[in-house]
Amino acid sequence: MTYTLVLLRHGESEWNALNLFTGWVDVHLTDKGVAEGKRAGRLLAEHGILPDVVYTSLLRRAISTANIALDAADRHWIPVVRDWRLNERHYGDLQGKNKAQVRDQYGEDQFMLWRRSYDTPPPPIDAANEYSQEGDARYAGIDVPKTECLLDVVERFLPYWESTIAPELVAGKTVLVAAHGNSLRALVKHLDGISDEDIAGLNIPTGIPLRYELDENLKPVRPAEYLDPEAAAAGAAAVANQGGK
Amino acid sequence: MTYTLVLLRHGESEWNALNLFTGWVDVHLTDKGVAEGKRAGRLLAEHGILPDVVYTSLLRRAISTANIALDAADRHWIPVVRDWRLNERHYGDLQGKNKAQVRDQYGEDQFMLWRRSYDTPPPPIDAANEYSQEGDARYAGIDVPKTECLLDVVERFLPYWESTIAPELVAGKTVLVAAHGNSLRALVKHLDGISDEDIAGLNIPTGIPLRYELDENLKPVRPAEYLDPEAAAAGAAAVANQGGK
Repeated sequence: MTYTLVLLRHGESEWNALNLFTGWVDVHLTDKGVAEGKRAGRLLAEHGILPDVVYTSLLRRAISTANIALDAADRHWIPVVRDWRLNERHYGDLQGKNKAQVRDQYGEDQFMLWRRSYDTPPPPIDAANEYSQEGDARYAGIDVPKTECLLDVVERFLPYWESTIAPELVAGKTVLVAAHGNSLRALVKHLDGISDEDIAGLNIPTGIPLRYELDENLKPVRPAEYLDPEAAAAGAAAVANQGGK
Repeated sequence: MTYTLVLLRHGESEWNALNLFTGWVDVHLTDKGVAEGKRAGRLLAEHGILPDVVYTSLLRRAISTANIALDAADRHWIPVVRDWRLNERHYGDLQGKNKAQVRDQYGEDQFMLWRRSYDTPPPPIDAANEYSQEGDARYAGIDVPKTECLLDVVERFLPYWESTIAPELVAGKTVLVAAHGNSLRALVKHLDGISDEDIAGLNIPTGIPLRYELDENLKPVRPAEYLDPEAAAAGAAAVANQGGK
């Protein structure tokens, strides 16, 4: 008896296409992102994967990707749970800034530290900044972050994983998690036991379902597989090169 | 202190456009239906209505309409609850049949009896019929109807309304119900105290939010209002004339 977990990073967003740091800014999918969502749904259907429940962040790009993929897979009717703990990493004061410009201004080392170090957050965002989420109704009752490093994402997401998502798997449900580059990196780090150092090298492509088969302790029985490995390799390389010329 | 409830019938579906009895058959929206969903979202936003939770049926045309409307209203992130009790009336053996042909074959009286009588269901559908929902995974654990009259819809939907939706209103939440012509007629009948006879004359147009303000006993404090009354009047007349030449 194994449990099936599928991770899905949202399709290309308007700000992916513009090469801007996005974080908690709630941008739309591009047409390419919509097409990626449909492809994700077709891949699920072709592999006979039938999600019983979907978890999404509170951000439109993950919500839309899940809606589009599940519709294409004829699983649009399954229960949906949304939670801010699946949100992308809050990119602090970098939100809304161009990645290439940040790289030019601060240099390669600082740029990569902010993007990929485990425990160094970007500078905090000011509440008056137009890209701050302070006061956004969807986060009522939670302490909206001013910035986050990947460790912060691990610390907010893993308790939710343990308390809420993991029990659904153990109950035998096939679970789809539609989320973001860094919230999914946090989960993959946990599932695959990746070190704080090595996680820097892990990039998750947009819009390609990543399937885990987990044992009763929710440990992978074999390495996770992208449902389209070729497209995933190309996509991961593109993520790694963001901010380049 | 009043409570806000908004009812939304799905936008035009492929089978609305083809003038077929649909019921539980899970058809897609047309482009016009998608546009109606967007208009519904804009109407919500223009009227300052901010749903806190949305209930949908298990049918794609209601699910998609809710997704599209909430995205347009910037409320895509609210919690979603789906339940088969909000499904359209099961049209029995009429599912998949052309309304005008049924009218020609069986005559005006029988046609209107099946469409609008309170307690006369159409003939039951055979489990082998391609438009039966027998064995559909989404209805696992429930006794899939073979046909329903409006009374049947009332009897399955109102207990859910009382147990699950009404408490959310009383807790102060603005509730959006995205459903179908007949499941919404069942609810309107209850809320407005419409008799078994008079409900026959009530037609709900597609894609136009209908707002109720309810008192602490969930009785309307004034007549419910369509957010676009002119379009609603035209839409209701179109529904009433279905099956005509």
